[in-house]
Amino acid sequence: MEIRLRDLAEELGGRVIGDDEIRVVGVETLDRATPSHISFYTNPRYKKAFLATRAGAVIVAERHAKGEVPEGPSLLVVDEPYLAFAKVSTRFHQPPRYEPGIDPRAAIDEGAEVDPTATVFPFAYVGRGVKVGKRAVIHAHCAILDGAVIGDDCVLYPGVVVREGCIIGPRTIIQPGAIIGADGFGFAFEKNGPRGPRHFKVPQVGKVVVGADVEIGANTCIDRGTVGDTKVGDGAKIDDLVMLAHNVEVGPLSLLAGCAAIAGSTRLGPGVVVGGQVGMIGHLEIGAGAKIAAGSRVMTDLEPGSESGGYPAVNQQHWLREQAARQRLPELLKQVRELKKRIEELEQR
Amino acid sequence: MEIRLRDLAEELGGRVIGDDEIRVVGVETLDRATPSHISFYTNPRYKKAFLATRAGAVIVAERHAKGEVPEGPSLLVVDEPYLAFAKVSTRFHQPPRYEPGIDPRAAIDEGAEVDPTATVFPFAYVGRGVKVGKRAVIHAHCAILDGAVIGDDCVLYPGVVVREGCIIGPRTIIQPGAIIGADGFGFAFEKNGPRGPRHFKVPQVGKVVVGADVEIGANTCIDRGTVGDTKVGDGAKIDDLVMLAHNVEVGPLSLLAGCAAIAGSTRLGPGVVVGGQVGMIGHLEIGAGAKIAAGSRVMTDLEPGSESGGYPAVNQQHWLREQAARQRLPELLKQVRELKKRIEELEQR
Amino acid sequence: MEIRLRDLAEELGGRVIGDDEIRVVGVETLDRATPSHISFYTNPRYKKAFLATRAGAVIVAERHAKGEVPEGPSLLVVDEPYLAFAKVSTRFHQPPRYEPGIDPRAAIDEGAEVDPTATVFPFAYVGRGVKVGKRAVIHAHCAILDGAVIGDDCVLYPGVVVREGCIIGPRTIIQPGAIIGADGFGFAFEKNGPRGPRHFKVPQVGKVVVGADVEIGANTCIDRGTVGDTKVGDGAKIDDLVMLAHNVEVGPLSLLAGCAAIAGSTRLGPGVVVGGQVGMIGHLEIGAGAKIAAGSRVMTDLEPGSESGGYPAVNQQHWLREQAARQRLPELLKQVRELKKRIEELEQR
Repeated sequence: MEIRLRDLAEELGGRVIGDDEIRVVGVETLDRATPSHISFYTNPRYKKAFLATRAGAVIVAERHAKGEVPEGPSLLVVDEPYLAFAKVSTRFHQPPRYEPGIDPRAAIDEGAEVDPTATVFPFAYVGRGVKVGKRAVIHAHCAILDGAVIGDDCVLYPGVVVREGCIIGPRTIIQPGAIIGADGFGFAFEKNGPRGPRHFKVPQVGKVVVGADVEIGANTCIDRGTVGDTKVGDGAKIDDLVMLAHNVEVGPLSLLAGCAAIAGSTRLGPGVVVGGQVGMIGHLEIGAGAKIAAGSRVMTDLEPGSESGGYPAVNQQHWLREQAARQRLPELLKQVRELKKRIEELEQR
Repeated sequence: MEIRLRDLAEELGGRVIGDDEIRVVGVETLDRATPSHISFYTNPRYKKAFLATRAGAVIVAERHAKGEVPEGPSLLVVDEPYLAFAKVSTRFHQPPRYEPGIDPRAAIDEGAEVDPTATVFPFAYVGRGVKVGKRAVIHAHCAILDGAVIGDDCVLYPGVVVREGCIIGPRTIIQPGAIIGADGFGFAFEKNGPRGPRHFKVPQVGKVVVGADVEIGANTCIDRGTVGDTKVGDGAKIDDLVMLAHNVEVGPLSLLAGCAAIAGSTRLGPGVVVGGQVGMIGHLEIGAGAKIAAGSRVMTDLEPGSESGGYPAVNQQHWLREQAARQRLPELLKQVRELKKRIEELEQR
Repeated sequence: MEIRLRDLAEELGGRVIGDDEIRVVGVETLDRATPSHISFYTNPRYKKAFLATRAGAVIVAERHAKGEVPEGPSLLVVDEPYLAFAKVSTRFHQPPRYEPGIDPRAAIDEGAEVDPTATVFPFAYVGRGVKVGKRAVIHAHCAILDGAVIGDDCVLYPGVVVREGCIIGPRTIIQPGAIIGADGFGFAFEKNGPRGPRHFKVPQVGKVVVGADVEIGANTCIDRGTVGDTKVGDGAKIDDLVMLAHNVEVGPLSLLAGCAAIAGSTRLGPGVVVGGQVGMIGHLEIGAGAKIAAGSRVMTDLEPGSESGGYPAVNQQHWLREQAARQRLPELLKQVRELKKRIEELEQR
């Protein structure tokens, strides 16, 4: 497929600086692009690649369309370059289409209802009473246990497990190996049990309810509720190796980056942004739109719209000042020792 | 099923405040309960929900049975409310029963011994010389490689891998996607090898030995020993996405929360409590009953019964004081600057 | 198999202190070894076990061959004891040999090319256009999606997923449950979309290219590139539960310990050593041979050969001084308060 730059500009509501008649056949990174590719530039770390690119066109914001720009490529100037790039890339890369039908090597329980337009790959296991919606794609080695519901247009990549009774909303994509609905980590210590001390298993009888248009990353684990449900709101996006414990609630449109871990019953409002490897203890309330910097440990409720960082996480501005101060700590210790001496001298006078 | 509150009280050794003739049909959270449910209250964060609950009965400790209590529900007063709740919930939620037998779509090596009372789901793979005990449940897509042993009454959820020769004790539950017995991360750098520098793979010839009544969380990885075994003691409970490196030993009844990671050869005594995302370097000795706060990084041996936190982890009380102090650091810097000026003025006198 | 110590010494270029005619039948840890085993000693934490060992022989470096040594065992003195041990262990533990051939219960797409010398286990899924090289081993429940390439002599343990078009170099070992080529976490926020605000999915059209002689740990996730590829260089070794985001590049011979997480587009030079649970933000350049201590959070580029630690990571020496200083913080606060009082008294004079 070939698209004229001018047509892209019109679709995206942008303007072209340079030749708008050129045609592009695909997207590429700045350094790998050829004159038949369109690329994008947003992060100044890649300025050198921007100036040296051989791309036919580069998508940029207004502020990068002036001053130092490469001579070769046309510039497609838009308000949101990354969003525009995503849309152009989508023009060139439609998701694969799958033949509808159940592969005879899949195991479908008699009581399951799989829509005839769905695609089920070899070695998928679909349990009793499961419902699989229209055009859903169930890849090899997925296991959907009794009573679970997979919405229309979902894609479950290989090795996804959806345990008993969990509900996945329409258009949700689950990357390989993610586990939805494992038992939460619930034990009550029994000191004097009949067989000696033990951790008594608390039945995990809630489920996981995932909304529409969610994405769940590879090998991510979302545990079922102990009583009541664990919930992921519509349009939330969750990266790889994230852990959501029992009864966590993630608000709609929230973003959770890789390896984040949220302990039991903590609730995130809508549009919360959680950086990579962030940890949160249980039973917290995280306000709408709160942002938590990568690597932080959250141990208190957070206000809507707040920005936090650190271990334990505090206001982001404070955390930055604290970082700066900490690096001066060894020097500070020396200074205080010196001041002490000078005071002693003064006291001797 | 319906149970009279009075009978529950008797079973649990508790007393009832209010009507003990009411009957409950299930457990629920405080906010979702109806008059036919029993709920529990232990964490003051949920006081509002406690006071507003429509539950027929609420399990509480003595200290929450007086003062401000809701008017509607009967109170079931016990010593250990969460344990009592767990037991009540178990009354209502028996684990599912599985039909014994091997699904014809499973692949069982001729040399394997699967007890006739065990249940093996479609697409499970059971290798040469494997033993699967009485009433064990092997879900879809489990792979049990040559020579491994699965004890009586174990449940392996979908996608669990138990590699060659590893041993799983009776009544152990393994959540989906957990990997038992992958090769440990063992390499010896060879600077001048025949094919240039390389990391020479150290054969990982030990195994993993998991005790009885253990629970292992979703996508958790327990690596086999390099030489000698990696061990998890009886009754230990391990959450999701935990990593135990080669030759780690976890004492009986220890608890490891989600995303904890323990490096090679570190040994935990009995009853150690490890918070979420805790990291430990290798070759440490962690004493019996030591508690490590979520998110800490342990870099030294820890005393039995100690409580630690921070990065690097120190005595928990010290860590709390350090936290408080750190937050006052920017202010401290300012103060010291000011003191310095005042000293200079004094010196000028 | 039995090997004479003298022959081992010759192979390894070492010398024997004590009887070099003894024969050993296997490797063992110091505390489990019997007179027919050979063991090794490098870490002084195990000195007690060294002195008490019943091993027939112990591999040591020159510095541990003098002074306090056990009386029983012969000592095999070499330059690199751990490497020598690895080689001896390899003598006793050859990797298992697999019968070549495709199990009839595997699902191989008609268009796939599986070399006749490869081994494919039951329930493996091999998609359209996939190539599987000579002597490669594909365990049960592996899913290799359309167009992926598995090099000669690779071993993919159970449950490994290699998504569309990804390339795995020869002799690479992938532990169970690892996911190669899941979609990267790429979304562009669209505030005023036709269906309201949403995170627009950026097509993830790059692939993952893994080099030769790589090892990838259990449940590790390596995401495909957004545009352009995610790359792992020859001879790199990656532990369990590691996450490499889209377009990360790992240099040859780098080592990444368990639970490390590297955000998008960060590039590691050759021979970088990343400790367990280390986090790195995106778009960084990590110089050749840089070492990052376990648990650190890297937020800046790092120089070749540098050593870093902390949160945020700084020069390792500085981080150690900072740690020491931090532990004295509460005391420092007290000191400054006291100095202030003394200054006030001086000012009153």
